[in-house]
Amino acid sequence: MNERLNELQNWLQTNEIEAAFLTSPDSIFYCSGFLSNPHERLLALAIFGNAEPFLVCPQMEVPDAKQAGWNGDIIGYTDIENPWEKVQQAVSKRGLTMKKMAIEKEHMNVERYEKVQHYFAAPKLVSAEEKLQRMRMIKSEGEMVKIREACRLADVAIEVGVNEIHEGKTEMEILAAIEFEMKKAGVSQMSFSTMVLTGKNGASPHGTPGITKVQRGDLVLFDLGVVFEGYCSDITRTVAYGDINDKQADIYETVRKAQEAAVTASKPGVSCSEIDLTARNIIRNQGYGEYFPHRLGHGLGISIHEYPSLTETNSLELQAGMVYTIEPGIYVPNVAGVRIEDDLYITDTGCEVLTKYPKSLQILR
Amino acid sequence: MNERLNELQNWLQTNEIEAAFLTSPDSIFYCSGFLSNPHERLLALAIFGNAEPFLVCPQMEVPDAKQAGWNGDIIGYTDIENPWEKVQQAVSKRGLTMKKMAIEKEHMNVERYEKVQHYFAAPKLVSAEEKLQRMRMIKSEGEMVKIREACRLADVAIEVGVNEIHEGKTEMEILAAIEFEMKKAGVSQMSFSTMVLTGKNGASPHGTPGITKVQRGDLVLFDLGVVFEGYCSDITRTVAYGDINDKQADIYETVRKAQEAAVTASKPGVSCSEIDLTARNIIRNQGYGEYFPHRLGHGLGISIHEYPSLTETNSLELQAGMVYTIEPGIYVPNVAGVRIEDDLYITDTGCEVLTKYPKSLQILR
Repeated sequence: MNERLNELQNWLQTNEIEAAFLTSPDSIFYCSGFLSNPHERLLALAIFGNAEPFLVCPQMEVPDAKQAGWNGDIIGYTDIENPWEKVQQAVSKRGLTMKKMAIEKEHMNVERYEKVQHYFAAPKLVSAEEKLQRMRMIKSEGEMVKIREACRLADVAIEVGVNEIHEGKTEMEILAAIEFEMKKAGVSQMSFSTMVLTGKNGASPHGTPGITKVQRGDLVLFDLGVVFEGYCSDITRTVAYGDINDKQADIYETVRKAQEAAVTASKPGVSCSEIDLTARNIIRNQGYGEYFPHRLGHGLGISIHEYPSLTETNSLELQAGMVYTIEPGIYVPNVAGVRIEDDLYITDTGCEVLTKYPKSLQILR
Repeated sequence: MNERLNELQNWLQTNEIEAAFLTSPDSIFYCSGFLSNPHERLLALAIFGNAEPFLVCPQMEVPDAKQAGWNGDIIGYTDIENPWEKVQQAVSKRGLTMKKMAIEKEHMNVERYEKVQHYFAAPKLVSAEEKLQRMRMIKSEGEMVKIREACRLADVAIEVGVNEIHEGKTEMEILAAIEFEMKKAGVSQMSFSTMVLTGKNGASPHGTPGITKVQRGDLVLFDLGVVFEGYCSDITRTVAYGDINDKQADIYETVRKAQEAAVTASKPGVSCSEIDLTARNIIRNQGYGEYFPHRLGHGLGISIHEYPSLTETNSLELQAGMVYTIEPGIYVPNVAGVRIEDDLYITDTGCEVLTKYPKSLQILR
């Protein structure tokens, strides 16, 4: 059994929980190495305080699970079998009665919840999510190899996008070119919907890319990420197309200073709120506080949003092994929208910036 | 109040259910016209047997909801407010006590389920999904305008893909070119992960596109769809790159005949199982029964999988207004993988084929 399963098993024992029944593809990948999403079909990992774990997946995925390195029991089922009955049998065979079970309450739907209640005689259900988030928050060397590659590809994607900016090109055309190059580089999935926003769209708090064309004097905002072997990156850059006015330039410089100050402040022992406020106060002091309406950043890894959450009020202290974004932004309607975002890795003494595309104001001619 | 809300209200009254509390973006779009997915933030539509409905969404989306045509009450909430308390107040204001509520059990997660139990004093919960699926199964004229356009774009996408096939091109390169052209045409979302599979990959029941290169003598399988104004299309075509052998050709012709026979049989009053068996028996009689391991097709619309389900056992009768796929396939490992799929619309007297890319065997030189 791997270290992660061991830690969960200890947690179950300490808290007198008979089993954790995990159902989110991300958690199952984290604990078993098997990355799969069979959607409405059941995928689950059952971990016990005092018995061997088992994986549940569609029959046709059983070879993939073994290939991925899972060497525990696997319960495969065909479309005409009831996977819940097979799960029930596997639990009975282990001689267990479920009085208390941990599930992922934000992932499991009510239909499955009712199945759990039915097939396990109504156990008390607690959430496994906080524990899993805390574990996933500290990245291993192996995870960092993948995250670094995802970040390297994100840098390339920004470069592709910047090179595509020309008079009359639409947001969607630029976006298409970025994803085209990423796919050719073997990226099968972006971390989230790629954003390319220009002019007024970038200055709106929730613009979506469309047929707006780039015009001289516009700021163009890119927010994107790629998934590499199951791990996400997330980067934002804003560049100028032609000369911009003083107000736009002031907004850009304020965001850049705030972002760089928060990067510099990132090291073990500092709280998330201190990091958020380092950036936020620079923006407030320059008079743009009301135009920075979101948190400073978020952890990322297998999911695009993980722990830690960098907010004004989160007292959690940074620890070596954390990976998170720093992404202050200022959005003044009809004037400018600027956001600059890097992914960081906390080391024993400070931090490593994983995304490396330049941040000084770039004016394209 | 629109017709769809009226029908749901009647259903609630008939079944003595005080309210339906819908939370899936697809159902909310269907009932309100407002298409949004704020992920972990609450989006909900509350419909009552005897009171005015209301929509719940993040504060910053309130203008979008109005813009989309929703003219009922809207409860907006900021990130520091508890939306559930506001929902509770809105229900109290209507003087209602929830004894029985309809929810989407396959969509609502346990965390929200516990909120519903807490804020509405533990009502009995029934599923709204069967009712919604039955309603969504019959498309309106307005919906057909969007579905037809989504199908037209899918035809274009296949054409782009076929034109990209050249010696040495990888599956991912061809896929990238298809999505590039779609994005340039203004398509912001594909219906599902685009599939381009060649040679052995196409003959595997769950291949994924990768760095495999097209070679002469291969069959190349495309399975893709686009979303147009919230509505999906879904098409599959298989073409030959260079000459193929007799076995491959026999498999192709068997699939084509099965597909066309099922299309021809599609009209009101015929059961889903009859349609499935029309195609399946042709494949069985040609000796490939075991290599056709999935249902014949599925309904589609706002979601890529809706009612009706075309299986060997579904006795549901076809009705005018249904839209579904017919997609028989034969996958013989190391020999050939062929699937041909169209989207159909059932009319009063027969059916209209919405996807129009040719189906006769195309051999590319």
